[in-house]
Amino acid sequence: MKSDWTPTAFVLDVDGVMTNGQFFYSAEGKIFKVFGPDDNDALAMLRNKIRIHFVTADKRGFDITCKRIVDDMGYELDLVSSENRLVWIDNKYSASEVIYMGDGIFDDCILRNVGYGIAPANADKRAKQAANFVTTRSGGDRAVAEACTHILDMFFYDGASCRIIDKGY
Amino acid sequence: MKSDWTPTAFVLDVDGVMTNGQFFYSAEGKIFKVFGPDDNDALAMLRNKIRIHFVTADKRGFDITCKRIVDDMGYELDLVSSENRLVWIDNKYSASEVIYMGDGIFDDCILRNVGYGIAPANADKRAKQAANFVTTRSGGDRAVAEACTHILDMFFYDGASCRIIDKGY
Amino acid sequence: MKSDWTPTAFVLDVDGVMTNGQFFYSAEGKIFKVFGPDDNDALAMLRNKIRIHFVTADKRGFDITCKRIVDDMGYELDLVSSENRLVWIDNKYSASEVIYMGDGIFDDCILRNVGYGIAPANADKRAKQAANFVTTRSGGDRAVAEACTHILDMFFYDGASCRIIDKGY
Amino acid sequence: MKSDWTPTAFVLDVDGVMTNGQFFYSAEGKIFKVFGPDDNDALAMLRNKIRIHFVTADKRGFDITCKRIVDDMGYELDLVSSENRLVWIDNKYSASEVIYMGDGIFDDCILRNVGYGIAPANADKRAKQAANFVTTRSGGDRAVAEACTHILDMFFYDGASCRIIDKGY
Repeated sequence: MKSDWTPTAFVLDVDGVMTNGQFFYSAEGKIFKVFGPDDNDALAMLRNKIRIHFVTADKRGFDITCKRIVDDMGYELDLVSSENRLVWIDNKYSASEVIYMGDGIFDDCILRNVGYGIAPANADKRAKQAANFVTTRSGGDRAVAEACTHILDMFFYDGASCRIIDKGY
Repeated sequence: MKSDWTPTAFVLDVDGVMTNGQFFYSAEGKIFKVFGPDDNDALAMLRNKIRIHFVTADKRGFDITCKRIVDDMGYELDLVSSENRLVWIDNKYSASEVIYMGDGIFDDCILRNVGYGIAPANADKRAKQAANFVTTRSGGDRAVAEACTHILDMFFYDGASCRIIDKGY
Repeated sequence: MKSDWTPTAFVLDVDGVMTNGQFFYSAEGKIFKVFGPDDNDALAMLRNKIRIHFVTADKRGFDITCKRIVDDMGYELDLVSSENRLVWIDNKYSASEVIYMGDGIFDDCILRNVGYGIAPANADKRAKQAANFVTTRSGGDRAVAEACTHILDMFFYDGASCRIIDKGY
Repeated sequence: MKSDWTPTAFVLDVDGVMTNGQFFYSAEGKIFKVFGPDDNDALAMLRNKIRIHFVTADKRGFDITCKRIVDDMGYELDLVSSENRLVWIDNKYSASEVIYMGDGIFDDCILRNVGYGIAPANADKRAKQAANFVTTRSGGDRAVAEACTHILDMFFYDGASCRIIDKGY
């Protein structure tokens, strides 16, 4: 199945989407986040088809997020608050051309106003109701990998993605 | 639905409510706790409607708890043992005017004797039986966010909270 | 319900029983273990009724286990391999007078040969089959607290434990 | 039940198989992995019956993996990318004589082309479909221990493994 609509960007929240939503505190403050398998590999298959852009509202954990998303995975990451996120997406990419993946209590509004919304299994109830697609896996446990597969199937299904599937994906 | 009763304070236990109940040990002792998404944002929506006060019985992890609850989130936190907690709540706020959220094996008694009791999904069986409301989410996985939404709906449903809902909450 | 049999000791494995079974590795080796809520409080209620003794086969994580069980909780802890454990229990306390709680693939044999065997929900299949009682909660998530309540109800139900229940337990 | 086929090697992926798939990030980068109970003990029972060899594609976490698998458990570990893994296995052991255990989005191809494929409960959907056996337990929560028991039952059931069972296994 290939949709007629072609998205220009895949914008992803980080905490609860790329991570399991947990953040570890020591007496010195926020110190660790928990990432999971396959998400990086699956995003690599989308990379030449659609622009991938991460956003986070977490200022205190920004260094941790940056290390993983920017330094180790090589993607764009911006600090964008929940309130300003929909406007930011619209200004940057035009909301109707964007696939957005988010899990939080303020994400339902964004998910309803972008071209295509995806929520992980662990997302807030309202976010899941607002999303076009809810993954069976949770954030930090292949939710993004599953979203990537779904996006390939829905919007980029052609010979190219087929060959990837034939090679073991 | 808006109840006739108006609570004056929302008193919350920390471990198992704001955290998933886990505490990490190294050979040097208790070192990390695990917090989760949306709780801080949801509490911010209640902040101007009801006094929010955290209590913990964990002496060894107090520095970690303090860093998160007091330094980073800006709420009151007191070290109050399980046995003294109901009396402490009653002296400080009058138990019948308080919403209390707790998860432990000594919390059932408190939950039964406050104005309104809330337990997270991961709570001890007796605590859940004693609570007026049990969240579908667990501590450190949006249980407090869900409790805040429930409190807004039950006790503060008016134009103000409506506008918050319209803005994406 | 009070059984006719009175146990003299409660012997507990640590990993997977007091912890969730996970152990964290850094590049320097085994570094953290994950403990949970209520177990320490519930053991305190048993303390004056039965001797409590912990055993572990984990040499590399012994310092971490020791810090929690011995230094912070104040219980006896011995390093006893899986193979030697049943004999060790029998020599120390007489197996038929002991309640043993364990979760591992070698624990079924021990659970079958002590006076009363308890396994947490997360235990190996065979350990659960061999146990007299399987908790509904998992190790590091109140399994030991549930076991303590069960032991009080089964073997020590009298005015004393009743008063504890009246005080909120 | 003993199969006619006798495998010569048991090749295991590490992340998501020996670990729960999570990797922890601090602001300095990938820092911890999460291992679990019984896997080491169960592998020890297979050790004299079949060659055990670990592979990983994780370069950034290689030091952590190496510490656990090579230094502390004493097994062979090689850094082999997902794409090259099937060829690597075939060159090293001949794919048709190998039991492979993997969980990732590229493992289905490998699982289908080895002698016998095993996936843990937490594996990617396609990996589970491609496997001959899917464990009921997840990676880092006894999946490998369960796989070892299964391998003993399927391919090495004789007096020797019987005696191990009689001794408490």
